[in-house]
Amino acid sequence: MTTPTIQNLFSGLAQDAHEEKIVALLSAPNVRVDRIVSNGQASPPDFWWDQEWAEWVVLLTGGAGILFEGEKTPHELRPGDYVHIPAHVRHRIEWTHKEQPTIWLAVHFR
Amino acid sequence: MTTPTIQNLFSGLAQDAHEEKIVALLSAPNVRVDRIVSNGQASPPDFWWDQEWAEWVVLLTGGAGILFEGEKTPHELRPGDYVHIPAHVRHRIEWTHKEQPTIWLAVHFR
Repeated sequence: MTTPTIQNLFSGLAQDAHEEKIVALLSAPNVRVDRIVSNGQASPPDFWWDQEWAEWVVLLTGGAGILFEGEKTPHELRPGDYVHIPAHVRHRIEWTHKEQPTIWLAVHFR
Repeated sequence: MTTPTIQNLFSGLAQDAHEEKIVALLSAPNVRVDRIVSNGQASPPDFWWDQEWAEWVVLLTGGAGILFEGEKTPHELRPGDYVHIPAHVRHRIEWTHKEQPTIWLAVHFR
């Protein structure tokens, strides 16, 4: 048996500090864990996420505003905040923190 | 449609500061996300975890030593460290941080 490998969530953040970067940390038939690092990005105007799989997402650093379709005001997410977004619940990211990286851990599942 | 509810990972840590506490944050047919808070606990002597489901686990605060069967020395886990433990890969927690809570986010899946 090969010993499981230990890696770190916060490594490799310095590269691409101005882009939004998604890395799959785990990929299995029914679940995928992504690390998303945002640096001030937001969803494009009028764009809505409408996903086939459900998503459980936690914000670890930084901050963001998430808007669910049908609501008027985005919810502010701070470190430690998590939310379960069922499949096809439309939502968009209105803003992410401008001065520090926003690190998300997203568990997509079916 | 009901709007998804936002909750925080770090809330409710003060209670049971001397126990180890597991809370299911998400429970779905193929995936379960647990928050585990350890306060110096370790696996009992000669106890090995041997799980039906695979586990992807990240340590967010504190520290811990994890030992995989067949190895002589535990791996030290620090904040941000994560590891994918396939089903039935036997392992034990040799120690967790004595002075601060160790918060784990465990994604169990099949």
